[in-house]
Amino acid sequence: MQERVKLTDEQRIDWLRLIRSDNVGPRTFRDLINHFGGARAALDALPRLARRGGAAAARICSREQAEKEVNAARARGIDLIALGEPDYPPRLMMIDDAPPLLAVQGRHDIFARPLVAIVGSRNASAAGMKFASGLARDLGGAGYGIVSGLARGIDAAAHRASLDTGTIAVLAGGHERIYPAEHVQLLADILAQGAAISEMPLTWEPRAHDFPRRNRIISGLSAGVVLVEAARRSGSLITARLAGEQGREVFAVPGSPLDPRAEGTNGLLKQGAIMVTEAKDVIDALAPILGRGFDLPVEEPEREEPTANEPSDDERGRIVGLLGPSPCSLDDLVRLSRSSPAIVRMVLLELELAGRIERHGGGLVSLV
Amino acid sequence: MQERVKLTDEQRIDWLRLIRSDNVGPRTFRDLINHFGGARAALDALPRLARRGGAAAARICSREQAEKEVNAARARGIDLIALGEPDYPPRLMMIDDAPPLLAVQGRHDIFARPLVAIVGSRNASAAGMKFASGLARDLGGAGYGIVSGLARGIDAAAHRASLDTGTIAVLAGGHERIYPAEHVQLLADILAQGAAISEMPLTWEPRAHDFPRRNRIISGLSAGVVLVEAARRSGSLITARLAGEQGREVFAVPGSPLDPRAEGTNGLLKQGAIMVTEAKDVIDALAPILGRGFDLPVEEPEREEPTANEPSDDERGRIVGLLGPSPCSLDDLVRLSRSSPAIVRMVLLELELAGRIERHGGGLVSLV
Repeated sequence: MQERVKLTDEQRIDWLRLIRSDNVGPRTFRDLINHFGGARAALDALPRLARRGGAAAARICSREQAEKEVNAARARGIDLIALGEPDYPPRLMMIDDAPPLLAVQGRHDIFARPLVAIVGSRNASAAGMKFASGLARDLGGAGYGIVSGLARGIDAAAHRASLDTGTIAVLAGGHERIYPAEHVQLLADILAQGAAISEMPLTWEPRAHDFPRRNRIISGLSAGVVLVEAARRSGSLITARLAGEQGREVFAVPGSPLDPRAEGTNGLLKQGAIMVTEAKDVIDALAPILGRGFDLPVEEPEREEPTANEPSDDERGRIVGLLGPSPCSLDDLVRLSRSSPAIVRMVLLELELAGRIERHGGGLVSLV
Repeated sequence: MQERVKLTDEQRIDWLRLIRSDNVGPRTFRDLINHFGGARAALDALPRLARRGGAAAARICSREQAEKEVNAARARGIDLIALGEPDYPPRLMMIDDAPPLLAVQGRHDIFARPLVAIVGSRNASAAGMKFASGLARDLGGAGYGIVSGLARGIDAAAHRASLDTGTIAVLAGGHERIYPAEHVQLLADILAQGAAISEMPLTWEPRAHDFPRRNRIISGLSAGVVLVEAARRSGSLITARLAGEQGREVFAVPGSPLDPRAEGTNGLLKQGAIMVTEAKDVIDALAPILGRGFDLPVEEPEREEPTANEPSDDERGRIVGLLGPSPCSLDDLVRLSRSSPAIVRMVLLELELAGRIERHGGGLVSLV
């Protein structure tokens, strides 16, 4: 396993500035660090890159803003844990869009436990909530930490049943904008034996698209995700899809075909999710995975010589010309542009920092 | 496909006598016919075989009894269709314990249709019956004949919803002992477009163990069996197991883990049954099977020379000594006894006719 070291205060400020700057998402953050060898060098390069990508001026998070966030977090007992630091949740580190910094309140030791997510409908049935409670209690008793999204319905039932054994709430907004507001007390109860996590600034008001974004953290933390009730096209199904993409086990609880809240879960079962009718189903499926442990990706920064990879206007034009609204892969861009992978990556970075492209899973990109 | 020919009246009487004689089940019937080349020769050999097997006197069905049954059936409009005759249900012919004679009331042409069984709890929920009705209606509309067991609950719902398109009731007792009695009118309604089948004498009162025996006919007739609701250790699960052994598709309808009536079906799904939430699930899975058609087993009677296979007392003793209460295979007996397969089969026939052994699936036998 890779040596894990803590950032200096100075580095943490730089990391925070970089991830809070416009058009820098977790994947771009990783590319920038890999390319420039550190957050400070990346911050220095940002204006130039964004300009070359076609943006008039991309906002860069100031040192003052970052210091203010760090201090506000510290004042509330919230730690900003960086990717690669000893307390960072180990399984989450493996996903390709892992948050560079996690704002964590509560206990860090729960991250070292085997974790399983239990999620489902906000508009859950009494039976669904009862089942979620029993499952969370049994899995908690078996040593699992329970991960969920603090939503009404299934999420809340799963958290409540595992308060004593340890549960993790992953927030879509910042720690000072708990949603739904009625769960402020539940969250306080969670912190005694568990934790609350957010990748957003403390005062970030969660918007609709922050929830699916948050769901990748729920599944990313966990060895498996259990869907208890889920209608067709529900947010929980997004979590299940992300879990599958991340190589996590996907579990689903069956229900009557006449119950619309079982449509999503039955659909997952038809697609090969593991059926759960009792905690043993989860434990049996995860035992070999947890027993095996896992290797952290060894992250060797490429540290290319920045100027050596300066794309020419010609190259940049050719690569931009190949992009369109349909996602295409880096490999295809390299093949079709006949530029080097390093050049293509640099042009994509520029375009991303200029807000002109969107990144998708599997290394795909499209023009916005 | 094998040429199918009708028995003469004389042969039908002999077949009926043979299958109605003590200790002659469908598998023994087949062995006897194969060995002696016909029912008449087998009837002649019965007393001698049973005596050698150690029975004082095994009852043989008399010619008068058989004629009486044939006449009573004819008077009620019931046909006794023999295995291999043109109207015998083609898929049922493929199971190794197919009834030699089927007492059929109603329409024979339904047997040529693709058939699917829908079975489940007698003590069914309203939702379960509603689902069974909808499924039977949709599959009936798609050209399937619906097979079930005329029981209360799921069976009755499936029959009722497919009265117009065609449904088959498989009885555990004789045609004059309809169980449950409250379904006499339902059975009459079934006969208009469908059929009722029994392998038992007309006046046979069904006992507990006749129901699982009957279930092999439900699954044997069908390309697949759908379980709608089934508690743990229910009769419907026996049908599912038999269906699996017969190479039929096993389908199950999911339900809440908190519903005891879903324990059996969820259990089947965990073991690999195909999940059904709509008729399409059944149709999609069966389409390739039905498209493929199937070959009837080509049944070449071995017609061994009876006297040539007379086992010596020594051989008989050695084979009996190898048998015990745990089922063992013909192959093992041949290997361990060092007798020929023909001799071993003959000793087993004798023992069976003497009521001393029991046959199991897969060619296994055990001492009673």
